[in-house]
Amino acid sequence: MTDAALSPPAQTELLVCIKCRRGGAAPADARRPGRRLYDRLSDATLPEGVTLRAVDCMQNCDHGCSVALRGGTRWTYLYGNLDEGGPLEPLLDGLERYHATADGLIPWRQRPEHFKRNCIARIPPAVFSDPLQEADQ
Amino acid sequence: MTDAALSPPAQTELLVCIKCRRGGAAPADARRPGRRLYDRLSDATLPEGVTLRAVDCMQNCDHGCSVALRGGTRWTYLYGNLDEGGPLEPLLDGLERYHATADGLIPWRQRPEHFKRNCIARIPPAVFSDPLQEADQ
Repeated sequence: MTDAALSPPAQTELLVCIKCRRGGAAPADARRPGRRLYDRLSDATLPEGVTLRAVDCMQNCDHGCSVALRGGTRWTYLYGNLDEGGPLEPLLDGLERYHATADGLIPWRQRPEHFKRNCIARIPPAVFSDPLQEADQ
Repeated sequence: MTDAALSPPAQTELLVCIKCRRGGAAPADARRPGRRLYDRLSDATLPEGVTLRAVDCMQNCDHGCSVALRGGTRWTYLYGNLDEGGPLEPLLDGLERYHATADGLIPWRQRPEHFKRNCIARIPPAVFSDPLQEADQ
């Protein structure tokens, strides 16, 4: 297959901070909120080509639970303030839209509300355009 | 050279969000704080093997100015609350320590105070150990 438009999207990783306490002091023997979120996502149906990975702290502790989406030539997006017991649909919907892009940029109006309000940061891919060069053009 | 201990460290990138307003409403014709920080870093002496790159918004707008450190097999670290007019030494010191590592992890006591208090998030490298596997061992 040579037509890029027909190619499947590049792999996406859904990273979940499993150490997150979501601001609370979880009992020592309890599953942490971040781990609960990970376990629920393990049971969910993810888009084909998406891999779920557990991470040992993404240091967004003040705004957990946290996930990051990355892969291929996309910008990496970190989202916070996820409720490990709440509905997963907004995250899964945003994940599917992200996975369908080549650059990770979901058009604003198509972003789930949670993504609009809880983006902690984004990191560019290895190859990205230089905004200073663009400004000079 | 085959001895890894003698190899130079892998390349590091210092990413700077040049669109940052640092919470303020900069006049339309003024250089933004993020751009000022970038320009000052352009004039600074960076460790050999470190590349400065401008980024068009890393969406850490509530806690700017922002930089990210990444490269090689290291964890990516995002730091916020930088003062574009303040001393650059803490950032440059932390950058040098980061660049000297293979995994991006600066021992806690060696981290500049600003890094200790203003880490917004970290993202693992492509290859990292699975904390769930480690827990089972």
